[in-house]
Amino acid sequence: MGMPMELNTMIVTKGNEVREEENRFVLQKEGYRLYPIDVPVAVQKTKDSEQSGTALIKKVEWQQNTTTITYTLVSLKSTN
Amino acid sequence: MGMPMELNTMIVTKGNEVREEENRFVLQKEGYRLYPIDVPVAVQKTKDSEQSGTALIKKVEWQQNTTTITYTLVSLKSTN
Amino acid sequence: MGMPMELNTMIVTKGNEVREEENRFVLQKEGYRLYPIDVPVAVQKTKDSEQSGTALIKKVEWQQNTTTITYTLVSLKSTN
Amino acid sequence: MGMPMELNTMIVTKGNEVREEENRFVLQKEGYRLYPIDVPVAVQKTKDSEQSGTALIKKVEWQQNTTTITYTLVSLKSTN
Repeated sequence: MGMPMELNTMIVTKGNEVREEENRFVLQKEGYRLYPIDVPVAVQKTKDSEQSGTALIKKVEWQQNTTTITYTLVSLKSTN
Repeated sequence: MGMPMELNTMIVTKGNEVREEENRFVLQKEGYRLYPIDVPVAVQKTKDSEQSGTALIKKVEWQQNTTTITYTLVSLKSTN
Repeated sequence: MGMPMELNTMIVTKGNEVREEENRFVLQKEGYRLYPIDVPVAVQKTKDSEQSGTALIKKVEWQQNTTTITYTLVSLKSTN
Repeated sequence: MGMPMELNTMIVTKGNEVREEENRFVLQKEGYRLYPIDVPVAVQKTKDSEQSGTALIKKVEWQQNTTTITYTLVSLKSTN
């Protein structure tokens, strides 16, 4: 009767983020994932890559074993 | 840096549920609340009232300090 | 970087509970499981069996991919 | 019937950590707090101070509205 979920402390995009507006993105992930909302979190392309920026998650939606988050990029790390 | 939330194991409607379809309802609650999805949970009007039915939560959404759940009523307890 | 966990809304003992005192029991489960503390939860032997009682979880411990809960049985359902 | 908790993504010690061994510390916090286990998390003295190190949380215990974590400091940032 338990519900499997995953506690996430950063956003790993794997390049699947979709830009909705200037600095707002939507990202779908498989499974039910718990993310902190309105708290600065690191954004990375993969779990082992460098941090590419910092985001604030504004919305989390769980449905049909999928988690959809909407986040605002609040800072970018230049990578040169 | 923490994010307040509440672990919920049943649905307490306080009469605020909105019927979307035959047996599907939408309910908004204040704050970020964690509910089990696709697991049978009790439905009650208040936290001290009798259980009025059993539901399956199909969708949970967190945004702007509000939790919106969509659930399907799978059984009703008659109360006569 | 995520941490797998499971949201649990009842206690499924599978007969593995250990009595510590009169009505206090300790139960170990595999993995990290989130349980509500100080909230009445159903106790069942298996996930499909009848509810055998109601308990209050007083302590939850996570360590080495194991969850240990201490709970107090507050009511028993007779099964004759 | 809900259980209030807080999702934490870093360790804020407020100087209350107790050293148990070489690089293992125990910290008590008020309330029920969810922390990721076995995942690198930032350690800070206050929520607004610089990150002082990185830790792996090895154990989380919830009891009597208190959360006790045991963590291993895996790296230190020098602050000169």
